Amino acid sequence: MTATEVQREALQGKAAVVIDALRMTSVAITALANGASRIHTVRTIDAALDMRKKSKGGILLGGERGGQRIEGFELDNSPRGYTRAIVGGKEICMTTTNGTQAIDVAGEARRVLLCAFNNVTAVAAALQREASAVICCAGTDGRISMEDVLAAGALVERLGGTDNEMDDAAMAALRLYQQARGDLYGALAPCVHVRRMQSWGMEEDIRYCLREDRVGAVPERDAHGNFFVLHGAK
Amino acid sequence: MTATEVQREALQGKAAVVIDALRMTSVAITALANGASRIHTVRTIDAALDMRKKSKGGILLGGERGGQRIEGFELDNSPRGYTRAIVGGKEICMTTTNGTQAIDVAGEARRVLLCAFNNVTAVAAALQREASAVICCAGTDGRISMEDVLAAGALVERLGGTDNEMDDAAMAALRLYQQARGDLYGALAPCVHVRRMQSWGMEEDIRYCLREDRVGAVPERDAHGNFFVLHGAK
Repeated sequence: MTATEVQREALQGKAAVVIDALRMTSVAITALANGASRIHTVRTIDAALDMRKKSKGGILLGGERGGQRIEGFELDNSPRGYTRAIVGGKEICMTTTNGTQAIDVAGEARRVLLCAFNNVTAVAAALQREASAVICCAGTDGRISMEDVLAAGALVERLGGTDNEMDDAAMAALRLYQQARGDLYGALAPCVHVRRMQSWGMEEDIRYCLREDRVGAVPERDAHGNFFVLHGAK
Repeated sequence: MTATEVQREALQGKAAVVIDALRMTSVAITALANGASRIHTVRTIDAALDMRKKSKGGILLGGERGGQRIEGFELDNSPRGYTRAIVGGKEICMTTTNGTQAIDVAGEARRVLLCAFNNVTAVAAALQREASAVICCAGTDGRISMEDVLAAGALVERLGGTDNEMDDAAMAALRLYQQARGDLYGALAPCVHVRRMQSWGMEEDIRYCLREDRVGAVPERDAHGNFFVLHGAK
């Protein structure tokens, strides 16, 4: 339900799926779908600036603090800014308040995939040979965020496990998603992070991020590096 | 959703409600309703044995490890054993795997109340003058347990707050409860801890604990001591 609650030792040898549906993992999915070559994720602004410096300008910085663009960064945390014209062929380094921290927590896993409503069916397909998976919701400032739980429920539904194969948190997410799926926007309208985004005028981003299976792209941590590439990319 | 996730600093000055519906808080509610004078809760078996020794036999020990009675304890963790004949006028000291640990986590709060399906409306009444409350679900071994989440949802429903007054976890609990309330037993049958209890032959205890508003008793931490007495007791 939140990354802080994930027991790191439970991740060893497993596939982990990180969800920060509004908006970090939606951004990563869109960026890779639009041709970005790699996505690095770091915890701090300094680490991102440092990475750009070492790359001699060959890297774009994206992310947010307090939901807003970070000074000196090319890109914010809106997936709609990560167009093919801007990110095609580029490396990107991101840092956000909750999403990149959750990726860090999942670091011990054998595989790490990024998921959001936009690619949920594709993530389930990428997991089809796994005996199990741990879904890590980013949450908001250490607390449960409904949009991540609903996206987790959508993934649990696509995975199609039986009751015996789910823990209670997975079952709770599935039930909440089943209840909400007819009107995800309506189900999320009263929720904390969505209300905050609405107050920032981010209506379009919310609607973009809630569209299920917009793309087939799955960001997966590279087998040899600490960055994300398209799952299945040669 | 789980006690491990409760941010202790968020409890300061607040009322906390601890829920371990199957079965520790149900036991405490039944015991006080049946005339027990005080309920002490401790983390370890040794601490319980020590308390009995110091009391010179004037205290009954109850609780469980692995769901079963602890050697040398008079009582296990079945509320049905805490009859008036056995507990009337007595002090009890309890230690359990999850419930007493959650009570410990809630220790920083200004008030601590114990809740389960059995007394959920009475707990809401005992909170009526509070501006806010933090509900701490015990969970099972650090993980979310559906029965505690559903009982939390029942309490949120009785508190009658608006969407703006709930965080996303409270809203999730409320929605899951609303979906399950017509058949709590059926909703819980596929869940981890309930399946385990069924395998132990504890069907009757499950049904006892799921009955909403069986009693009006609310265990509340004594204003001057570290034990629970009936809320409103003189």
